[in-house]
Amino acid sequence: MEQKKSDWLTPVPKQSLSKMVVEKIKEGLISGELKPGDFLPSEAELSERFGVGKSSIREAVKMLEALGVVEICKGNGSRICSSVDASVMNPLIFQMILMSKAESKDALVEFRKMIETSASLLAIDNADEEDIERLKDIHMKTKSDFNKGWATVENDMLFHAEIYKSTHNPFVASIGNSIMEMFQPSLMISNRDYSKIVTENHDKILEALMHRDKKAMTQAVADSLDKWKELSLDESPD
Amino acid sequence: MEQKKSDWLTPVPKQSLSKMVVEKIKEGLISGELKPGDFLPSEAELSERFGVGKSSIREAVKMLEALGVVEICKGNGSRICSSVDASVMNPLIFQMILMSKAESKDALVEFRKMIETSASLLAIDNADEEDIERLKDIHMKTKSDFNKGWATVENDMLFHAEIYKSTHNPFVASIGNSIMEMFQPSLMISNRDYSKIVTENHDKILEALMHRDKKAMTQAVADSLDKWKELSLDESPD
Repeated sequence: MEQKKSDWLTPVPKQSLSKMVVEKIKEGLISGELKPGDFLPSEAELSERFGVGKSSIREAVKMLEALGVVEICKGNGSRICSSVDASVMNPLIFQMILMSKAESKDALVEFRKMIETSASLLAIDNADEEDIERLKDIHMKTKSDFNKGWATVENDMLFHAEIYKSTHNPFVASIGNSIMEMFQPSLMISNRDYSKIVTENHDKILEALMHRDKKAMTQAVADSLDKWKELSLDESPD
Repeated sequence: MEQKKSDWLTPVPKQSLSKMVVEKIKEGLISGELKPGDFLPSEAELSERFGVGKSSIREAVKMLEALGVVEICKGNGSRICSSVDASVMNPLIFQMILMSKAESKDALVEFRKMIETSASLLAIDNADEEDIERLKDIHMKTKSDFNKGWATVENDMLFHAEIYKSTHNPFVASIGNSIMEMFQPSLMISNRDYSKIVTENHDKILEALMHRDKKAMTQAVADSLDKWKELSLDESPD
């Protein structure tokens, strides 16, 4: 008699136990019982408390380390990091890459527009005079580089990073920079030939910010993204 | 003679090499040379190409696995995942937790307001009749539960998740749900005594959506967050 394959009788994947441990630790962090700087209980204690083997605990701690949530202190156990590692590895970008391949590119462009518009409006509320001075400086350099016939990609990135920074909100800055990184290849394309348009767009954005004019800002961001989309989709290889 | 401690002469941390490998793979993904579903080159080949030891490659692959970017196929090497694992472990939430502890809670509340407002406005553009029907159903259940004296937390979460979903943008849904998870403990607080206010807020949000009225939506979201902030900050333990 042929034996039917019973999927539910196969061993519980080890991975899912370690993910459940990660989830438990997340709950502790959200509720505030676990705080940045706190040491985790020992492997043996966690294993007993959660009712899972030590290897699952070890794997969960490794995952948390990869996420920049836990730092392993040699000989002292593991501790919750007290700040986000300003590391090269941004988990959000990976999530966006995988999602953008599965879904359409349009959804990512729409998301960019949503974040860029709302972040620029928040900048109108929160930017101080020093922020505006810094933006003016970057913009002057962009213009002068453009007049010399130089590429403006780097200045373009700097300008937008500075807008995000001038919201004085670290969450906005983090998500804004992640989105920019995603679009860097298409910025290269759109900037190669269209530095002029970038300069004009920044003119309008800066002016809206200086006059704290939300209507003008919404329009300026929409126009600049429309132009960028036109250019980058025209020339993009895919 | 006392020997001065020379930090720069200590060994390069192994961690940073594996992070550099992760960064390389990220570049490949952003540029499109590496695509979801692709197998990574073998450990030996990666080690040679990047000029780092096999242990750093192994560690990098482990990190990517923890981030849900790579899946290890027994005997066949490692493959880039073709979709985001709808797993319990959301790296974005961890980032938000660590950042919110380092920065002020106000910044997170401000970020929530920015996302919730812009997402609700996008829902006005993108929601179809079926989305609105689903929202009406949830809202009716919320009202009926409220009249029975039952808690509305779960319905509240469902309602907001449905708003995010009705943007038809997976990035908005993902970030919206992460923010909600962060605030779940304070939702519990604000809902315990104030189910009435939640019901009233949803009334206004749903009405703005049905009339595709952006001005009313902006106002409704602002009001509902003001009330929630008042309640949750009043009662929050920290």
